[in-house]
Amino acid sequence: MKKLRNVNYCNDASCGSGGSVCLPDSDYPRVLIVGGGFAGLALARGLRKEKVQVVLVDRNNFHQFQPLLYQVATSGLEPDSIVFPFRKQIAPYGNVVFRMANVLEIKADENVIVLDKGTIEYDYLILATGTTSNFFGLEHVKKWSLGLKDIRDSLNIRHNMLQNLEQAAITCDPEERDALTNFVIVGGGPAGVEMAGALAEFCRYILPKDYPEYPPEIMKIFLIEASDRLLSVMSDKASRKTLQYLRDLNVSVILNELVVDYDGRTVVTKSGRKIEARNLIWTAGVTGELPAGIGKEHLVRGNRIKVDDNLRIPAYDNIFAMGDIAAMITPETPHGHPQVAQPAIQQGKYLARAIPNIIKKRPNKPFVYKDKGALATVGKRKAVADIKKFKFAGYAAWLLWSLVHIMSISGFRNKLLVGVNWALSYFSYEKSNRIIIRNYKRED
Amino acid sequence: MKKLRNVNYCNDASCGSGGSVCLPDSDYPRVLIVGGGFAGLALARGLRKEKVQVVLVDRNNFHQFQPLLYQVATSGLEPDSIVFPFRKQIAPYGNVVFRMANVLEIKADENVIVLDKGTIEYDYLILATGTTSNFFGLEHVKKWSLGLKDIRDSLNIRHNMLQNLEQAAITCDPEERDALTNFVIVGGGPAGVEMAGALAEFCRYILPKDYPEYPPEIMKIFLIEASDRLLSVMSDKASRKTLQYLRDLNVSVILNELVVDYDGRTVVTKSGRKIEARNLIWTAGVTGELPAGIGKEHLVRGNRIKVDDNLRIPAYDNIFAMGDIAAMITPETPHGHPQVAQPAIQQGKYLARAIPNIIKKRPNKPFVYKDKGALATVGKRKAVADIKKFKFAGYAAWLLWSLVHIMSISGFRNKLLVGVNWALSYFSYEKSNRIIIRNYKRED
Repeated sequence: MKKLRNVNYCNDASCGSGGSVCLPDSDYPRVLIVGGGFAGLALARGLRKEKVQVVLVDRNNFHQFQPLLYQVATSGLEPDSIVFPFRKQIAPYGNVVFRMANVLEIKADENVIVLDKGTIEYDYLILATGTTSNFFGLEHVKKWSLGLKDIRDSLNIRHNMLQNLEQAAITCDPEERDALTNFVIVGGGPAGVEMAGALAEFCRYILPKDYPEYPPEIMKIFLIEASDRLLSVMSDKASRKTLQYLRDLNVSVILNELVVDYDGRTVVTKSGRKIEARNLIWTAGVTGELPAGIGKEHLVRGNRIKVDDNLRIPAYDNIFAMGDIAAMITPETPHGHPQVAQPAIQQGKYLARAIPNIIKKRPNKPFVYKDKGALATVGKRKAVADIKKFKFAGYAAWLLWSLVHIMSISGFRNKLLVGVNWALSYFSYEKSNRIIIRNYKRED
Repeated sequence: MKKLRNVNYCNDASCGSGGSVCLPDSDYPRVLIVGGGFAGLALARGLRKEKVQVVLVDRNNFHQFQPLLYQVATSGLEPDSIVFPFRKQIAPYGNVVFRMANVLEIKADENVIVLDKGTIEYDYLILATGTTSNFFGLEHVKKWSLGLKDIRDSLNIRHNMLQNLEQAAITCDPEERDALTNFVIVGGGPAGVEMAGALAEFCRYILPKDYPEYPPEIMKIFLIEASDRLLSVMSDKASRKTLQYLRDLNVSVILNELVVDYDGRTVVTKSGRKIEARNLIWTAGVTGELPAGIGKEHLVRGNRIKVDDNLRIPAYDNIFAMGDIAAMITPETPHGHPQVAQPAIQQGKYLARAIPNIIKKRPNKPFVYKDKGALATVGKRKAVADIKKFKFAGYAAWLLWSLVHIMSISGFRNKLLVGVNWALSYFSYEKSNRIIIRNYKRED
């Protein structure tokens, strides 16, 4: 096998022609991974010592740690703390190359994928393209609201929020001012709940410090959920506690309600309620992000690709799917596994063992998901946890949440950055809190 | 005087009409500062205990530390390390309010400025709007090159550079690959020199680590200067040493040469030389950024506003200019003061004393600039310094440079972030250097 490090470019005129992407030669089978999320990265890492050439394709040059996107959106963390460059990650792996491109189409008959920058042939193709926001056909909502699925979404939310807070200082119209400072979050899953909690903390502790001109009650936060409880994937206790924590933080939680229209200013619900808000954050649903070439016959609910218990798409010998885009339907998982980090990581690790077996024509055991439990945080120092039979909430759950997230994030530098930021804000929360009270009293 | 903290909004219908920007009432004269650079911030700070209402207007909600923009451009620092929110800065000052807006026009007859978001009346107007890149009418160059004047420019340069490096991995065409990885920097002043040095360090120490596939000589850096020496504002010794340091870092320095055209790919010089490069960074000149309403009769070379020795525009009683936009013409400064941080800070402090005197109808002494010397760095551990009669270069100059910059940056958090980043890179420079050599040897 040729070393991939410091290879010279092929400089082969025939290679560039036909639009193929330049890749080092290799005598080993090529495993092409599309998408460097939790699943894709776990797979690339797991294959690092196998006799395969791994090609990782992603539209970004970095992995993003999705569980903390809401903290970037609310200025708690900077983007560089929760993204990690693929090239840094794969640098120690001798057999992995990275190419930054968008996937346009899969040509399964030719074992080729078409990118916006050329084509790549594969021996084994693994789709780990994840999901994108689902607006359920509400075009106005799609146009005017902000999703929370990648780092650009986080920065859009942050910029929109800060610009609106600045504009609120400029306008003399009290109705316009209210609209600029109101937030509506749609969707009571983990993303919506954590976003609402973080915004409520911002409103309580940061706003009076940075915008002393504003009355503290100026910013109102609404969380709208279609079903009758928050965090419906978690236990009843977790739902109940979350509702209580959010209400303690002055979030208006509205259950059994749907958003049906939005024009950038007025949120309209199914029951006819209208809320004036220039900020609408949409976390109400996701849909699989599919390249062309995977027919509808392979899909199940939520635009997910149906895979067998080896994560293979049944109609193809050499195409697999994993992570949020994949749905392995079993009696225990009639809609596939939950679309969160743990199944994705476990599936990536599973295929890192399974693909070498397939190459060597050895049998594979079916994929089995080990549920490690679920965690969600509501503002600082409060969280809910369902760990197997243990359902608990409060400070201990928050400590566990913090520990799990610090441990999971890629890279020492990022762990350090996130840890230092959290430690600083943990203590300055007290401090800024006191300063605000003092300033506030001094006013009269 | 009304307290400005926690004031309720005026909610006065007549206030909003006519499009005026909402501002707290005050019995004191209003000092309106346009631009929150070094000069504007120094003035706001200096007026914090005076009996005036200070209104600071800027298009951004943050002050940027311009001397380190090139480090953000080359991924050495993150943007949040070198920008500082105005609201955090002014929070302790009881009489300063901030409004984020673009200035469109000055109506000196009415004592009003027109913003994109409404109008503001003033008693005293201070223009500190700085400069923007000057392309000397070269429209093609303006369209395709990247300036280095604000934080967005820095991020543009960084994104462009990283995208081109990724694209170089994808193309099989060796000429295209060269163009993608070549950099041309135009202008041999401090910005161009520091940028060239940082890029050369990137090329030497980061590129082989993050892009082990590339031959180390792939990235070529050209620095083009119109005059016969670099850093023409500094001493001959500084120019000579800078040239030597850059050549040691493999930067191709081309003196006595002008860039006359660029189409996004081929840089054309006056002498007919052509350089293929997808990255052109323009630091060859600046021009004053003037709002409408200041007639040409008030301007001197470089679109700067001519001011008297009290920094007043002679034709007006109550309009002043300071920082890069102002030119105080004296026998010692026939073209005004140098357009760098020190004169701006000193002018801001001067007006903070002068304006209260003017209000109280007391005389002012003329502004006198105290030259503290000049510093420029070339890559890590090398710098040049002209401090009064002492001209020195090398490691000691670099230590001084580091110290001065850490001390000058706003805010404890930013000092800490920049300091930690520099310390980490200072040590990891050694470390990554060794690792590269080892990997490189392992290749054959």
